Order: sequence, then structure tokens, then C-alpha cells
Amino acid sequence: MKKDMDRMIIPKPAIVRLSTLYVLLENLEAEGKSMIYSAEIGKLLGVPSHTIRKDISFLRQAGTGNGYEITNLKNIIAEYLGFNKYKKACIVGMGRLGTVITTKNGFYSNQYAVVAGFDNNPEKIKKGRNDMDLYPMSKLKEVIDREQIKIGIITVPQSSARKVANELIDCGIKGIINFSPVLIEINREDVFIRNIFIAGEFNILSALISQYENKQTLGE
Amino acid sequence: MKKDMDRMIIPKPAIVRLSTLYVLLENLEAEGKSMIYSAEIGKLLGVPSHTIRKDISFLRQAGTGNGYEITNLKNIIAEYLGFNKYKKACIVGMGRLGTVITTKNGFYSNQYAVVAGFDNNPEKIKKGRNDMDLYPMSKLKEVIDREQIKIGIITVPQSSARKVANELIDCGIKGIINFSPVLIEINREDVFIRNIFIAGEFNILSALISQYENKQTLGE
Repeated sequence: MKKDMDRMIIPKPAIVRLSTLYVLLENLEAEGKSMIYSAEIGKLLGVPSHTIRKDISFLRQAGTGNGYEITNLKNIIAEYLGFNKYKKACIVGMGRLGTVITTKNGFYSNQYAVVAGFDNNPEKIKKGRNDMDLYPMSKLKEVIDREQIKIGIITVPQSSARKVANELIDCGIKGIINFSPVLIEINREDVFIRNIFIAGEFNILSALISQYENKQTLGE
Repeated sequence: MKKDMDRMIIPKPAIVRLSTLYVLLENLEAEGKSMIYSAEIGKLLGVPSHTIRKDISFLRQAGTGNGYEITNLKNIIAEYLGFNKYKKACIVGMGRLGTVITTKNGFYSNQYAVVAGFDNNPEKIKKGRNDMDLYPMSKLKEVIDREQIKIGIITVPQSSARKVANELIDCGIKGIINFSPVLIEINREDVFIRNIFIAGEFNILSALISQYENKQTLGE
């Protein structure tokens, strides 16, 4: 695997920034733009431009010094970071949020496919979906093995979120997106979690707004 | 405003980390724990413990050196960062995602209230909701002014997300949570945005998993 051996280890915060950059490049491409400079990227992402240049330098062949060709940079990021390597996901919790998230309306990219939904309520399973298969929780391991799924989404109530995360990990899931309002922490270096807190986003905005207003008061 | 004058300006990344710490402390409190050390916090949040200590030191009276009293630290963070200062929010886009997000099922904290929903589809407005008021887009300014709303949530399709963001800002909104899969950038220092990308989260996980596997291959 000569190609893999050449790859540098990219720090986690750089991976997160490059993933956001990818979305930005997708947007810019859709708007018909073809070139972008690191200063512009920095401004759009709210990150210093030298950080952006450093992040992009991990990708080797992507850097030009005279700006970046948008489609090219986008493809290099996807290829280098392995965005398309694990395309299959499953979701546990087929309530309202789980249903909305798995409905193909642009909330997840078409590159990814949520191929299986699990719930412990037989009524939800019976109702079915014509775009994905639904199973009871007892089929978790069987389906994850068969479909070789590496990514799991948690949309169960707070009280069972941690239990579900452990079950997913026991079944071989390596990446989890958690939408339940519990911070799930994982003490394994081979499993990754992204906690999405809607309430936390409110807190952050309220804090940023009040701090800005305090600054204005101080400045007067 | 002596009290406000005493406050330090806290860097944005520290505000974001302290907001996540707040959620962790809420969880720990609910589990009946009373004390925590910075090393433990660091491990749970995946952040170096010296960064955590530095973040907490912005809050002045919170630091003890011998661990932190959970309820106390939680309350200090909320008070100091002004989490409760702006409690009212509105949402634009009363489709399926907008409806799920505003349903009181734990996806946003009870401290916050989404008091008004907007949509340009009269059918959605007519249907109504018994827990919040729905309005046509033409009422945006009137309602935001009357209710003194500072936070806006965007759950409209990709094609109109930027337009809606500008309308919200024109009506005096200072903080935006954007769920549409477009990166919205704002060139104003008095308005803050949080972009939530579900597809981006898939990308990040796929990248972290493939990098871990490459590292294992290199190590063999």
C-alpha cells in the first residue's frame, strides 16, 4: 500500500476544518466559482488564513501558492480524507427526528446512505419505509455485519442513548453521530463520536451575543 | 454596570468549549455526581486538561485547584456566559425538520423558547400549532420587534437559506442556527452564526475512521 504509506497523519482539528472547507467548496462550485485564495477561505470559515494553508498543506499536491482551483481542491480533500470510504450508515431510533434525518431532502449528502433503521417499537417497524429497511433492535449485529456498516446515528431518547452507543460499538460500529441531548464519551481510540447538541448551540449564541454587548458597553 | 465591567473578554473557541462543558456538567449532575477534576473533564471532552483549566480561569471565582463542584461550576458558566440572557428564538421554515426541532422533546433545553414560526406556505400557517404561533414571512419584522427575539433558526431548503439569513439580520436577529446544507457566512461582527451540517458529520467520521485504519496499516 505505497499510496497509504505516503499519507501524513492529519490532526483531528484539521480534519474537522477540512471537512467544513469541503462543504464550502461544494457551495462555491454550485455557484459557478472556480478559484479561491486562502485569505478568502479564512474569512468565510472564520479561521486564520495561515491555519487554512497549514491544513491544506497536509494534502500535499493540493497547494499552489497562487490560490486553489475549487473543484480540484474539493476532490483532493474527499479522496485524501477518505470521505467516500465508508458510505453506509444505520440509525437507531425511528421516531420523528430519526425519520426526518433519513428522508432524502438534502440534509445528508447523496454520497452517504442510511441503509438500515432500528427501533424497539414493533409498530414503527411494521409501518415500514419504502426507501430503507427497518428492523427490531435484536437484528442489530446481524444487519451491521451483513451490510458492513461502520457509521451509526443515534436518535433515541436521552435515557437510552449511552446504552445504544455501547450496543453499536459492540456490533462493530466505528463512528457515531449522536443527536440525543446527552454527551456520549467514548474511551476507545478506534471509535469516534460527534455529539450534536441543539440546546448547546442556543447557549453558544446567547453567550456570543451577550459578550459582544458587554464589549460595546466597555467601549463606550 | 460594575459587574459587567469586571468581565474579561473570553475567546470564541473557549466560549464554545465552556458551552459543551456546561452540557457535560448537566449530565453529570443528573447522574448524581458532585465533584470533577480538570483531567477528567479533559478526558470526557477530548480536550487537553490545561486548556480546560485555562477556559475555566476566565470565569474567575470558579477555580479551586482541587477539582470543581459540579453544580456550582455549571451555574457560574451559565451566569458568566449569559446563557439565559436571550431565551427567545424564532424559526423560519416549518417543514418536517422545523417541526421536529420545535417540538418539546428534549432537543432543545427548556431554558429556551422558540416563540414564533415563519413559513411562506399559507397551508402550513393555517394548520397552526397549539404550542407556538405561526406567521407568514411578511410578519417577520413585526413579530421579532414585538417579541424582542435575538436568535433565529433556519430550516428552509438550501436555495433560500442565504436570503432568509439576510432577512433575519435585517430584522435585528443577532444569532442564527442554520440547519440547511449551505455554509452561511456573515461579514458582521455583531451577528453570529452556527452552521449545522449533518452531511459534514458523516464526512468527518469517514475521515477519522480511514485515518485510524491507515495508521494501523503503517504501524504493522
